[in-house]
Amino acid sequence: MTITASQDQHLKRRLRLGMVGGGRGAFIGAVHRIAARLDDRWELVAGALSSDPERARLSGEDLLLRSDRIYDDFNEMARRERRLKDGIDAVAIVTPNHAHAAAARAFLKAGIHVICDKPLTTTRREAEQLAKLAKESGLIFAVTHNYTGYPLVRQARAMVRVGDLGAIRVVQVEYAQDWLATRVEDTGSKQAEWRTDPARSGPAGAVGDIGTHAFNLAEFITGDEVTSLSADLHIFVEGRRLDDNAHMMLRFASGAQGMLWCSQVATGLENGLRIRIYGDRAGLEWHQENPNVLVFSPLGEPPRLIRRNGAGTKEVSQAASRIPAGHPEGYLEGFAQLYTDVAEQITARLEGREPNRYSLQVPTVEHGVRGVRFIEAAVRSSQRKSVWVCL
Amino acid sequence: MTITASQDQHLKRRLRLGMVGGGRGAFIGAVHRIAARLDDRWELVAGALSSDPERARLSGEDLLLRSDRIYDDFNEMARRERRLKDGIDAVAIVTPNHAHAAAARAFLKAGIHVICDKPLTTTRREAEQLAKLAKESGLIFAVTHNYTGYPLVRQARAMVRVGDLGAIRVVQVEYAQDWLATRVEDTGSKQAEWRTDPARSGPAGAVGDIGTHAFNLAEFITGDEVTSLSADLHIFVEGRRLDDNAHMMLRFASGAQGMLWCSQVATGLENGLRIRIYGDRAGLEWHQENPNVLVFSPLGEPPRLIRRNGAGTKEVSQAASRIPAGHPEGYLEGFAQLYTDVAEQITARLEGREPNRYSLQVPTVEHGVRGVRFIEAAVRSSQRKSVWVCL
Amino acid sequence: MTITASQDQHLKRRLRLGMVGGGRGAFIGAVHRIAARLDDRWELVAGALSSDPERARLSGEDLLLRSDRIYDDFNEMARRERRLKDGIDAVAIVTPNHAHAAAARAFLKAGIHVICDKPLTTTRREAEQLAKLAKESGLIFAVTHNYTGYPLVRQARAMVRVGDLGAIRVVQVEYAQDWLATRVEDTGSKQAEWRTDPARSGPAGAVGDIGTHAFNLAEFITGDEVTSLSADLHIFVEGRRLDDNAHMMLRFASGAQGMLWCSQVATGLENGLRIRIYGDRAGLEWHQENPNVLVFSPLGEPPRLIRRNGAGTKEVSQAASRIPAGHPEGYLEGFAQLYTDVAEQITARLEGREPNRYSLQVPTVEHGVRGVRFIEAAVRSSQRKSVWVCL
Amino acid sequence: MTITASQDQHLKRRLRLGMVGGGRGAFIGAVHRIAARLDDRWELVAGALSSDPERARLSGEDLLLRSDRIYDDFNEMARRERRLKDGIDAVAIVTPNHAHAAAARAFLKAGIHVICDKPLTTTRREAEQLAKLAKESGLIFAVTHNYTGYPLVRQARAMVRVGDLGAIRVVQVEYAQDWLATRVEDTGSKQAEWRTDPARSGPAGAVGDIGTHAFNLAEFITGDEVTSLSADLHIFVEGRRLDDNAHMMLRFASGAQGMLWCSQVATGLENGLRIRIYGDRAGLEWHQENPNVLVFSPLGEPPRLIRRNGAGTKEVSQAASRIPAGHPEGYLEGFAQLYTDVAEQITARLEGREPNRYSLQVPTVEHGVRGVRFIEAAVRSSQRKSVWVCL
Repeated sequence: MTITASQDQHLKRRLRLGMVGGGRGAFIGAVHRIAARLDDRWELVAGALSSDPERARLSGEDLLLRSDRIYDDFNEMARRERRLKDGIDAVAIVTPNHAHAAAARAFLKAGIHVICDKPLTTTRREAEQLAKLAKESGLIFAVTHNYTGYPLVRQARAMVRVGDLGAIRVVQVEYAQDWLATRVEDTGSKQAEWRTDPARSGPAGAVGDIGTHAFNLAEFITGDEVTSLSADLHIFVEGRRLDDNAHMMLRFASGAQGMLWCSQVATGLENGLRIRIYGDRAGLEWHQENPNVLVFSPLGEPPRLIRRNGAGTKEVSQAASRIPAGHPEGYLEGFAQLYTDVAEQITARLEGREPNRYSLQVPTVEHGVRGVRFIEAAVRSSQRKSVWVCL
Repeated sequence: MTITASQDQHLKRRLRLGMVGGGRGAFIGAVHRIAARLDDRWELVAGALSSDPERARLSGEDLLLRSDRIYDDFNEMARRERRLKDGIDAVAIVTPNHAHAAAARAFLKAGIHVICDKPLTTTRREAEQLAKLAKESGLIFAVTHNYTGYPLVRQARAMVRVGDLGAIRVVQVEYAQDWLATRVEDTGSKQAEWRTDPARSGPAGAVGDIGTHAFNLAEFITGDEVTSLSADLHIFVEGRRLDDNAHMMLRFASGAQGMLWCSQVATGLENGLRIRIYGDRAGLEWHQENPNVLVFSPLGEPPRLIRRNGAGTKEVSQAASRIPAGHPEGYLEGFAQLYTDVAEQITARLEGREPNRYSLQVPTVEHGVRGVRFIEAAVRSSQRKSVWVCL
Repeated sequence: MTITASQDQHLKRRLRLGMVGGGRGAFIGAVHRIAARLDDRWELVAGALSSDPERARLSGEDLLLRSDRIYDDFNEMARRERRLKDGIDAVAIVTPNHAHAAAARAFLKAGIHVICDKPLTTTRREAEQLAKLAKESGLIFAVTHNYTGYPLVRQARAMVRVGDLGAIRVVQVEYAQDWLATRVEDTGSKQAEWRTDPARSGPAGAVGDIGTHAFNLAEFITGDEVTSLSADLHIFVEGRRLDDNAHMMLRFASGAQGMLWCSQVATGLENGLRIRIYGDRAGLEWHQENPNVLVFSPLGEPPRLIRRNGAGTKEVSQAASRIPAGHPEGYLEGFAQLYTDVAEQITARLEGREPNRYSLQVPTVEHGVRGVRFIEAAVRSSQRKSVWVCL
Repeated sequence: MTITASQDQHLKRRLRLGMVGGGRGAFIGAVHRIAARLDDRWELVAGALSSDPERARLSGEDLLLRSDRIYDDFNEMARRERRLKDGIDAVAIVTPNHAHAAAARAFLKAGIHVICDKPLTTTRREAEQLAKLAKESGLIFAVTHNYTGYPLVRQARAMVRVGDLGAIRVVQVEYAQDWLATRVEDTGSKQAEWRTDPARSGPAGAVGDIGTHAFNLAEFITGDEVTSLSADLHIFVEGRRLDDNAHMMLRFASGAQGMLWCSQVATGLENGLRIRIYGDRAGLEWHQENPNVLVFSPLGEPPRLIRRNGAGTKEVSQAASRIPAGHPEGYLEGFAQLYTDVAEQITARLEGREPNRYSLQVPTVEHGVRGVRFIEAAVRSSQRKSVWVCL
């Protein structure tokens, strides 16, 4: 048993973080803040937490931000923070989807590293332009496909990479919830409103909101790329304008075949992200709602329960864990890992050294672009009777 | 707690059963025999257990059949048993797929009820002709989609029927195994040989062998019909001639949408038949490998664990159960239920009364026909780039 | 994958079974009959199913017994069956506890093998006399501690025996139900009536009815003997005369330490027999309600899921299994295994050969005696403030 | 679905925390720091992290403490912090057990609130004196029985309190690990060394280290008190001086009966804290390793899965949760809840208002005293052949 709480050892500095979006009434902003705080590598010092000045101010005060670091305009924030001696090292962009791109551009142009929520943008063109800009800037651009931060997800990826599964044949991935099983968007839920509004969410609903996570997870663990897909998108709740359920068949570059299901009307499921991968030597299974165990089944042997930080885990996985096996870590810790990884990358630059190589697992703008291409392909295939569409 | 072992009470007679196929080296024949025996409604008295005379004789002796009731030709068996005073009431046909139709015809023509393994036939035309013949004969023709005999499968069907789930939206069904993950057919396995041989198995491999069970289960529980499907069939093991994995998207008459996965190369899975159904009022989940629990999740309430013969079970489900909750029943008991149902139907005719209405749940030749149509549609769709094909 | 249904192959004869007790309204009698039938080694031909003549007759007719083999007096049955050319080979005694001993004596004296339900008797003296008589008779005397018939229970025992667990340190065993959580004995339940009546059940309630199974399981799997125990028995339901819950600490001959809990008031539990054993090399866990998996945890390695008839199972375990892994077997199959084992032992005698060695695992009258000593020790310890009492 | 990350809303101030113990090589200190940080209610500003000056300095620098707030003597720290204008609001004491009392006294005398690890002290006398001192001081004194911070543990307590379970009959609690299954204390593990050393750990090993948590959990959830116990303590690993396994029977004031098992040699178990409680109306079950689900089984109804922050949860439980159901929280979040509760209590005093009433659930010095009395009773009972000993 490893009995150290590993992530907070031997700090040399804390980085300064700013945030765009995430004011009162938001969900994911608060998650980003906890995630940033958990491993003590970041300090939140500035924010444009809302485009509404009053809400921005109140939200900033809630978080004990200094009044001169509370903004109601992210452009102004980018300009000013750039010039401050103790300006932010990075910005977290946690607005609804349609607003990601403009904010990201502003901070990239100000030379500030970016941590952006997913999906990256609402159109493929915008995504690709942003990727180009990010690349040219040389800055770090992370996209919070946070499920990649779970220790056993990284374990799974490492096992595939070293061949523990053999050649991958079948990938079954799904992400199903039930919170949109009724017309929640009519009940005053801010979360539901923008997620079901094409103007703010983009061309897809469930496919963009959670399907992209499932897609990213499949590519992350397999280390493979989906080359084409056949999709069928559905709207079950009357009057809804975007898909709330989708079925897809996938083909991977390696020859592996897959299925992807995402749903926000799967009654009884809360946050059912689950992946199963079958190779010619072994299979594995992981479920986000019980994330501290990975079932690994070598052909012809009894399945083994690999437990977070327990026997059989690889170093990459232990490195993303804080506490001993049997002491469950969860969603926030997985999310925190991305912040810790970005901090490590930035700190390494500041210190003129190589970052811990495990920190490079954090998804980048390129993965963000793939997510947007996935959305577009799914929508297109579904519109054309599920014809196979290349990504 | 119900504490009676309900199935063997108040017998008035045992029926006489014959069997075609199922001699030494077979698998499913022995299962049918245990199933027939378990509830004490049948006595095996005759058999054409193999087309090889010596094997037929030895197999018959193994089972303590009288020598004059051991046949090596099912036509002769049908002719002779028809004339015997104590001739068989029904025949169980448990040969490889390609031989079902001829045997079934022989016994139907002899006026003997038929219990036939699935898939019914290897072509749709043959299946439909057989259905026609069966209908004209007025005889009972059961097809052993045995998973419909599980008490909690019947519970699920009853719950859908009375509206406990509301309008069905999504059906996720899968049947995955790993026993054909390598070229088992080259190792002397009789089971693997015929199942991977188009001449004996028909146009599909996994789709016919187990996909049909998944398909049947989805239709049985929902009480709905699949109207079209989009399929992608795969052969992963080199040199194999029939699919060993398949992905499908389904559309139901009611507007429900589904996915179906079947595989015989899913490393680590043994007999993973699993179904999940989501309606606008509740969802449910059942897994064959842990068949004594059904997860029922009403929207906005905690999921409930409905346990076989336990609290919350309906009469139809209790009627298919033998022992109290907490005393697990399994595959053989579920299979036995079909034999008991057929026995009840035949006995009722002999006694000039209505059968127990629950006994009518046993799948018939019509369900067998649908299975064959499903196979043909899946193969056709896959050959045509996953175009949607009507059943 | 083993794909034979192994138990019914190559029969040479069926044995003839009689039954004492188990008429209309009984529970366990019907279970014994299914168990006897399942593997086709027995035919029920005679019965003294009730001491009430009318009930005896009706019960016998229910089972299609010939009228001259229906008795209302087990002494008469023993005398007459002994003289018949086709008299019974063995008798199953399935009455309430207090009636076991007299019936067993009658059949032993008639030279007929005995299969007796547990607990063997209601007093230790009676139990020891019976064991002596059985020993002198040279007859087979099986006691239906049926949980020893589960394939994975035999797997567990074999693993302990070959040292897979190392030296055993800790045994945690429990058997908890909830069916007596209220005064069911006042509602007309025949089962509850006699089980809560000292005159018919003996000096203990839950301890005798299910605690003995837990105790037997612990000794069976460890191959060790409990040498002393400290017990605390409780009556929770007002007016009840026998314990409905009991807590015990156990000491084993080897130095292992244990705890045993049995309860019939554990709200929500149905038939929760569960055992966990920890050695210095590995631990294992098995739960009767999900009997097709055994969790095996070698120190410092990921736990492994050993599945019935699957990878990692030993021959002794496979020999007690009928169908492939993934096709669940349950309570009835485990119970059937004892009947099959006894049949094998008797048949071997009739055929003048050695029995299959695995058939010798069936519990004998000696195990029955230990169960009765366990009951007495538990009652005594509890009466004396939980002092440690030797068995 | 609640979709706010609730704990960090509307902060008005952060409190200042000091720490005694928890320097390099420690485990629980780092956990305390993450816990304090997670909800943003605390800032670590001072520490006497080791009694070794060099280690104290390095450890303080690791944590970015200002050099003048790094101490190597907790007495000095108490004296100085008391006088500082921005001195600490509370101290966390995370040393080995034997050092808790002196440190706690020092800070109480300095008028500083105390958060102390468990067991409170190594003798009952010391514990009671400390409780007296704490009471007289009027200061807040929390003891980190951290498992009480889990949302579903609070849910369970609330359900018992309002009568959802009826009268409690049986409590089964266990806390089993395997990390001391071998002589880890000889391998350089600082954690194992002090825990197996009577001078630093006190009179008990496993009973003190984890048995106290199990005991506390049982009393916390039931709201009842253990009045007497019968114990059997064991040392399995040769040469070890303190118990590494213990079995106990418990009696509660209300008449409920219980069993308690704690072990550090239960091969394969990581951090297996599990509790099951059975009342005359319902039962419930919770397992720390899968803490986001509580099984609630009303008599005669299907068991229900109550999921953290999901349907069926009470306000007290939601208040201890940060993120929506389906997004697992774990050990660190549960631990953090105690820090947040203490912060709320202190802040309320500073602001002259009543604290959020849920914050009062945090265990106090009185619970610490009960834990020490439990240890002494267990040791005494075991030394006297498991005689029942009053607490």
